[in-house]
Amino acid sequence: MANLSRIKRIARKIVDQARENCKLVVVVSAMGKTTDRLIGMAQRITPQPRDRELDMLISTGEQVSIALLTMAIHSLGGKATSLTGRQAGIITDETHTRAKVASLNQDNLESALANGNIVIVAGFQGINTHGDITTLGRGGSDTTAIILAAQLKAKGCEIYTDVDGVYTADPHMVPEARRIPKISYDEMSEMASLGAKVMHYRTIDVARNYQVKMIVKSSFLEGEGTIIEEGSKMIEKVEVRGATQETRAGKIVVQSVPDTPGIAHKLFKALAEKEIIVDMIIQSARRNEVNDIAFTVASSDFNRAIQITKQVAEEIKAQGVIYDLEVAKVSIIGAGITSDPAIAARMFGALAKENINIDMISTSNLRISCLINTSRIKDAVEAIHQEFNLERVGEE
Amino acid sequence: MANLSRIKRIARKIVDQARENCKLVVVVSAMGKTTDRLIGMAQRITPQPRDRELDMLISTGEQVSIALLTMAIHSLGGKATSLTGRQAGIITDETHTRAKVASLNQDNLESALANGNIVIVAGFQGINTHGDITTLGRGGSDTTAIILAAQLKAKGCEIYTDVDGVYTADPHMVPEARRIPKISYDEMSEMASLGAKVMHYRTIDVARNYQVKMIVKSSFLEGEGTIIEEGSKMIEKVEVRGATQETRAGKIVVQSVPDTPGIAHKLFKALAEKEIIVDMIIQSARRNEVNDIAFTVASSDFNRAIQITKQVAEEIKAQGVIYDLEVAKVSIIGAGITSDPAIAARMFGALAKENINIDMISTSNLRISCLINTSRIKDAVEAIHQEFNLERVGEE
Repeated sequence: MANLSRIKRIARKIVDQARENCKLVVVVSAMGKTTDRLIGMAQRITPQPRDRELDMLISTGEQVSIALLTMAIHSLGGKATSLTGRQAGIITDETHTRAKVASLNQDNLESALANGNIVIVAGFQGINTHGDITTLGRGGSDTTAIILAAQLKAKGCEIYTDVDGVYTADPHMVPEARRIPKISYDEMSEMASLGAKVMHYRTIDVARNYQVKMIVKSSFLEGEGTIIEEGSKMIEKVEVRGATQETRAGKIVVQSVPDTPGIAHKLFKALAEKEIIVDMIIQSARRNEVNDIAFTVASSDFNRAIQITKQVAEEIKAQGVIYDLEVAKVSIIGAGITSDPAIAARMFGALAKENINIDMISTSNLRISCLINTSRIKDAVEAIHQEFNLERVGEE
Repeated sequence: MANLSRIKRIARKIVDQARENCKLVVVVSAMGKTTDRLIGMAQRITPQPRDRELDMLISTGEQVSIALLTMAIHSLGGKATSLTGRQAGIITDETHTRAKVASLNQDNLESALANGNIVIVAGFQGINTHGDITTLGRGGSDTTAIILAAQLKAKGCEIYTDVDGVYTADPHMVPEARRIPKISYDEMSEMASLGAKVMHYRTIDVARNYQVKMIVKSSFLEGEGTIIEEGSKMIEKVEVRGATQETRAGKIVVQSVPDTPGIAHKLFKALAEKEIIVDMIIQSARRNEVNDIAFTVASSDFNRAIQITKQVAEEIKAQGVIYDLEVAKVSIIGAGITSDPAIAARMFGALAKENINIDMISTSNLRISCLINTSRIKDAVEAIHQEFNLERVGEE
């Protein structure tokens, strides 16, 4: 939620919708830059605030939102009540700042609904079994909505965001990008984890687990949005659904690693222990039983990852460590696309035609990703978008 | 708490103090203008937000404070944990925005203390038996501190404020005003309810009930502050302890009320039903069995009180209603001062010497109050302060 006038507009939308539906639960996030502002305050107190206190602090952002939105609904004559994560019965594990929902006590929610209320729930937050306030981390508000929809057996879950649906590519990057009317959980999950910012992949994974039908809509514009639900198993047709780019990545190469068992394990265990998520990995055999190991990490983890890698490189007597922050990942997504070798060939061909060098490649059943130089990312996404005719998505 | 740099300074003070004391519970209020800012947001949504949502909203202010203060203590190497009103076990009645504390569940507080923590508690807030967030209204943070001190059997309760103690008069009004080293609960309660802004009288009443020794200190300056505790019963000496002014008042006069029983009751019951607190009341017999009834209310209630009074005046066939917002109340406070008629005489004399007209007078065992014209309030307080040699308070 962006600001006060937007809250009023959302309240109007909710009141209108409540007339059509019998029961409505609305999960809200913090307003605009509230969370950033709160984190900024903490940073000015201490560079490394503890997670429990950080949750205590930032959970106030959603609490402010639910109070104001509920007031706005009241002022329009709607019947509504607000619930914090705790009051909505959201119990999480003991982790702070990225807690996982452990269980849901629906008593308050159900009695509030039974009393005819539109229930306004603070997203992104819960309490652990000690009663401490926890937050769910990235995508937390959307995840809260999915979990409530699943547990309350809702007809569906509408996610309101600042775009009017999921697109075949980032419209800022590719002007020809088209809204995708319908997409499967698996495809959407890959899109999200490969850089489509509309939603966190974790949210979609929860929706898939509970088979919650999602609709992504704009909170500004009218429109049908994008429906996310289980893909029809009947259609065998393999299709590229979208292209994504991820520029917040860095590449690290450990050079001339002795080719003995357990070396890669040692490196990636050290990174995992510091909770650094490694994305693409390539181990290339060179000569004389010596390898290079190349991998990518999120740019936010880049410096820490280099440090750890250098330590391990010394231990395992590697020749050296080189790194590059000027890398970006371009991907295509579609169920089963790797089962059709022609698709990969077309992707690589499209990049070659533009003289874009491919540094690393990784694939799954649902996607093909290429690491390229950041400076060429726009050309790469546009070339791929055109190659697979994604500008025709949504046409009959 | 005013702002981030002040939070750091307070944290330093707390950490220093924790080295001397074994256990420390700190109750904090919202930072600076936070509460006003939150209320302003609510007002921009709707002119009449409901109280439950208002509490949901404004309780976030203290939650932000406890998180930041706890982080600041951590950064100085102190061991601390924050607790919201709920987590501190503060259970209130069902009223919103001015709830009363009903009970205290000390489990969390005691275990946090037993673990060696400085416990940072959000003042001003609790939850009711439904788990809804409530706020305690004016003086709520101080009241929270007193209640915790009482229930945890603390040695005392230090109240940090923006002045360095309780003064014989408002120093902005009377430059000669002196800090009072020690004052009884009763005298302090009267001072507070008669306009001394250092503390809400409700807080002192709770402290008296539980016999909690309070010390009022400045959060900016070093100093001994003012000790508030049970007055020594041994000393018979009657003494004026301070002078106060209250300018946020309005006077209403119902003219020519028929002198029949139940008339005054009817009027004041109607006002009480709208929760308007009536302060001074004078019923003056005139002629032909017809009275005037004059009374004062807080200026914030003035317009509502006039409206209600006019309705009642019509019902009881009074001649009319006149009113005056240009009134102020000057008072002197001291245990037993009305038992010495010379004191009242000296007060009236001091005002007369300055040609200040006295409109209404009310007294109790502890105080004498005069209603005068607002324009003369500074002269009145200064004259009284001088008459009773209050500039010598604290001298040996």
